[in-house]
Amino acid sequence: MSNRIVLASGSVIRRQILDGAGLDYDVIVRPVDEAAIKEAMLAENSRLRDIADALAEAKAMRVSRQEAGLVIGADQIMVMDETLFDKPKDMDEVRSRLLSMRGKKHELIGAVVICENGVPVWRHMSRTKLWVREFSDDFLDWYIEKEGEALMKSVGAYRFEGPGAQLFEKVEGGFFAILGLDLLPVLDYLRRRGAAQT
Amino acid sequence: MSNRIVLASGSVIRRQILDGAGLDYDVIVRPVDEAAIKEAMLAENSRLRDIADALAEAKAMRVSRQEAGLVIGADQIMVMDETLFDKPKDMDEVRSRLLSMRGKKHELIGAVVICENGVPVWRHMSRTKLWVREFSDDFLDWYIEKEGEALMKSVGAYRFEGPGAQLFEKVEGGFFAILGLDLLPVLDYLRRRGAAQT
Repeated sequence: MSNRIVLASGSVIRRQILDGAGLDYDVIVRPVDEAAIKEAMLAENSRLRDIADALAEAKAMRVSRQEAGLVIGADQIMVMDETLFDKPKDMDEVRSRLLSMRGKKHELIGAVVICENGVPVWRHMSRTKLWVREFSDDFLDWYIEKEGEALMKSVGAYRFEGPGAQLFEKVEGGFFAILGLDLLPVLDYLRRRGAAQT
Repeated sequence: MSNRIVLASGSVIRRQILDGAGLDYDVIVRPVDEAAIKEAMLAENSRLRDIADALAEAKAMRVSRQEAGLVIGADQIMVMDETLFDKPKDMDEVRSRLLSMRGKKHELIGAVVICENGVPVWRHMSRTKLWVREFSDDFLDWYIEKEGEALMKSVGAYRFEGPGAQLFEKVEGGFFAILGLDLLPVLDYLRRRGAAQT
């Protein structure tokens, strides 16, 4: 296996996904002004999926200009009532976010962009639908207490791979896509490029 | 939360699923003659899904006759070319099983039965489709070396949550169902019975 894989993401769950699959890769993260990209694109009335794609590309590009190999950038946005939601900034926002999602459907739009030598060479989008059940206020207290600040690391204020599963009535879409890195299509590309075993 | 949950399964991944969701439960496993049930049902030309259901029920019933609470039994069978496959018995069978699956579709049929006081009170089936890619012989060597005897614990000779993900071109179905315990419907029932927080 000659081709190096670089993950341009500090996300714990994305590392867990690649580790689980048994891949060798480096993690190199460089700062990207995500807020500026989002604001500019929202001001231009860009489609929400294009924003996720642009953010994934920006993260991969930033690293790929300096690092050899296939650099994986990824982003995930949450959309509810046609509005884009960011990661909650504090625990008050975690609570209000979860309350706003109660009994409603939302979507997670995931983008993955792979860059090589500072050029995007592959891109992929996923869209998953999730229905949050009418949970009780007691459940919410228990859930926030149990998960704590980890909830601020996710756009939806939940870890679906953890107790967050108890929030949902139904989900439509792949597990890896919900977690933030749609693994099977990524593996397919890595194999075609000699970066994963065929 | 008054109602006790008992998992009548020794499966590591089923425990991980319930632990991940943050549930409290006991694990109590009693031996069931699975081979006899399967043989008898195959001799009667039972539908394959009924076999999974009967095995899940037998495991839950066996424990529920002696233990209070909601006892969860689960089973998963693999079907390819309309034939039922058991867990591979040794590493030679792991290899031949994986070779027989190469480039082909198979299905996993999952059954969950919950018993209470020796009576089934809830049952659920899931069906997932998985397409194994045309992997190379080198990949197979690497994969078997990496995973080892863990592969004998799964009907398909793979752990989808691990390097087994590299086997697949495409999957249709929920992640928890593929792993062997379709979590969301189980949680829904546990909530209705006061065994999980509403």
